[in-house]
Amino acid sequence: MRAGPSQDEIRRQNLGALLRHVHVHGATTRAELTTALGLNRSTIGALTAELAGAGLVTEGAPKETGRAGRPSLVVRPESGRVYAYAYSIEVDRMRAARIGLGGAVLDRRELDRPRGLVAADAAPLLAGAAKDMQQAVPADAVCVGTGVAVCGMVRRQDGLVRLGPTTGWVDEPIGAALAELDVDAPITVGNVADVAAFAEYARGAAAGCDNVIYLYGDVGVGAGIIAGGRRVTGHGGYGGEVGHMKVVLDGERCECGSRGCWETEIGEHALLRKAGRSDARGRDALLALFDAADRGDARASSAVRQAGDWLGFGVANLVNIFNPEMVIFGGTMRDLYLASAAPIRSRLNANALPACLEHVRLRTPKLGQDAALIGAAELAFERLLADPLDVG
Amino acid sequence: MRAGPSQDEIRRQNLGALLRHVHVHGATTRAELTTALGLNRSTIGALTAELAGAGLVTEGAPKETGRAGRPSLVVRPESGRVYAYAYSIEVDRMRAARIGLGGAVLDRRELDRPRGLVAADAAPLLAGAAKDMQQAVPADAVCVGTGVAVCGMVRRQDGLVRLGPTTGWVDEPIGAALAELDVDAPITVGNVADVAAFAEYARGAAAGCDNVIYLYGDVGVGAGIIAGGRRVTGHGGYGGEVGHMKVVLDGERCECGSRGCWETEIGEHALLRKAGRSDARGRDALLALFDAADRGDARASSAVRQAGDWLGFGVANLVNIFNPEMVIFGGTMRDLYLASAAPIRSRLNANALPACLEHVRLRTPKLGQDAALIGAAELAFERLLADPLDVG
Repeated sequence: MRAGPSQDEIRRQNLGALLRHVHVHGATTRAELTTALGLNRSTIGALTAELAGAGLVTEGAPKETGRAGRPSLVVRPESGRVYAYAYSIEVDRMRAARIGLGGAVLDRRELDRPRGLVAADAAPLLAGAAKDMQQAVPADAVCVGTGVAVCGMVRRQDGLVRLGPTTGWVDEPIGAALAELDVDAPITVGNVADVAAFAEYARGAAAGCDNVIYLYGDVGVGAGIIAGGRRVTGHGGYGGEVGHMKVVLDGERCECGSRGCWETEIGEHALLRKAGRSDARGRDALLALFDAADRGDARASSAVRQAGDWLGFGVANLVNIFNPEMVIFGGTMRDLYLASAAPIRSRLNANALPACLEHVRLRTPKLGQDAALIGAAELAFERLLADPLDVG
Repeated sequence: MRAGPSQDEIRRQNLGALLRHVHVHGATTRAELTTALGLNRSTIGALTAELAGAGLVTEGAPKETGRAGRPSLVVRPESGRVYAYAYSIEVDRMRAARIGLGGAVLDRRELDRPRGLVAADAAPLLAGAAKDMQQAVPADAVCVGTGVAVCGMVRRQDGLVRLGPTTGWVDEPIGAALAELDVDAPITVGNVADVAAFAEYARGAAAGCDNVIYLYGDVGVGAGIIAGGRRVTGHGGYGGEVGHMKVVLDGERCECGSRGCWETEIGEHALLRKAGRSDARGRDALLALFDAADRGDARASSAVRQAGDWLGFGVANLVNIFNPEMVIFGGTMRDLYLASAAPIRSRLNANALPACLEHVRLRTPKLGQDAALIGAAELAFERLLADPLDVG
């Protein structure tokens, strides 16, 4: 129902499209930009000049091509000068990074997160890490904002963590706590699976795919979902809680308070329970279990096979619901997928509708451990890319 | 990554926005359009003149308001002159309608669909009904296209029905068969749940809601899903097959070939089976069952309660996955919802995450039996609304 944009909106849209292109693809010649954006050479020249004037890109000669003729100038993102802070709050650690326009991690810090640490304690620790990194930042550099990835359900509106069963967070105002410490730079908080999915979609395994499910496991399991090129985050921001899709009517008790959730069959506790290792917990215990399965330990192998079967069961449901082109397995789901590809495929073939399954590719993340940080930074860069001259 | 639109694209976008407004809201004053579209009065005047010149809207004096001052002219869609054909292919009947711009059903026909009827036979019957309706159409009227709603998985690209378990259709080329009979008007085929959801979203119970799940039951169960204001149809067009979300590991055999699908617990066969009426089939048998439950028949009541519990079970999963604002129960799901609201609510409260559930409203369709036809026509009108001057 929205009317068409004004001249000024179009200019901003074109500036954003050009900046996004070099942000995602890196150094690009003016000739390539002309083709990619469908704009003529003089418009590309004017847009580039405007972005360069704002200190967002630089222009320079390309590397020697050996070809005759005047080479097309190369446009590069100002990665050193324009940056975002990215935080990732995980089950037992917190990470902070400074990430340049273009997606390069310029600096990083890692902190322990003692279980029980709440938002009011976490915020100054993260802000302290940022302050520490700030010392190496050039005086003319510009921070466009801060993005935060959290394990939990995040209210879009203000970054309140409604429920993070694995961190024990209930209604923890991490967005507000960080905003109090730094009122200048805008802060955006997102669920880690949503954020990592966004990173893999923007510049990772799913680049170019418009229908993607990114499954992310730590203690629990969640998904970041892209449908028709848009993030599916729901009315309040809580969408993608696939770990709480019930798969067993009166199944195991889940940390969410219900029973039979998918994560009670494929999450960390489930794997350790199935292997008779209920006393153990944490990522190292899980890796030890996968190792044991790999070495032929019968109980560990059986646990991994069973969990893999349940992983396929739930993925088949998501394939029938979303008809995606790609399913990405991140975090502990990556380990489980790699350890049990056969039962997963077999369950998928048995349960998914052939039409929904026929174009699905199963993949592991391309950005690895950094997906959450890179995605958190993307949340911050989104504002800049929507309106490049409003920031900087 | 797309660059901003050209002047001409903006003009078309504005024309589409204005036409869409009167298509959805009916007669609207120029003053209201100025506010709704955020354009100034002279632009609204120019756009309206252009649309009137193309025969898509008329302008006229409003009804007497009793207020002083010059009244704002009223813009109305040309419902009698601009229309689409809409077909609905259902389990045991087919319907055809002529639907005017603005959504009014101008004419309609109903045909039996003998079980076993394939696309090659259905197409001429539907085209015949359209030809019959065509006789009453004014000579200067313009058909913008044909939309078709089908029970089954529809390939977006060409309207091939990949699988319609309830109609027995496998790879039936209904899109191509209809296109052969009428090469002029474009034909768009969609799944009935997607199409009905689109209608309820555009002008029904979900108007103004951007995150909606429309559950539709006939023999099977499917969903039309709107997320962030966009239809979720997946890579090939097959998204929304929620009836084939598995809810029981080794459950009842499903018509899709798998076991334990949601529709084996809430579909027509499931309800009749649970009530000990496995020999019966069809909508009348189902209505008789709901009647019996309503009159206190123990076995029928128990069947409805059980199926209602399963309906709540699956809806809770979808609520956790999509965080919708509204769930609409259409077709047989409407009957089941109305007959078992208590177990559905109870299961939702037990299984859905509180944050995902807190803003969900449960509703029945506003457009009733006509939703499929109106939604099918919307598919055809979409082309016109995207570029009003390209059609007509």
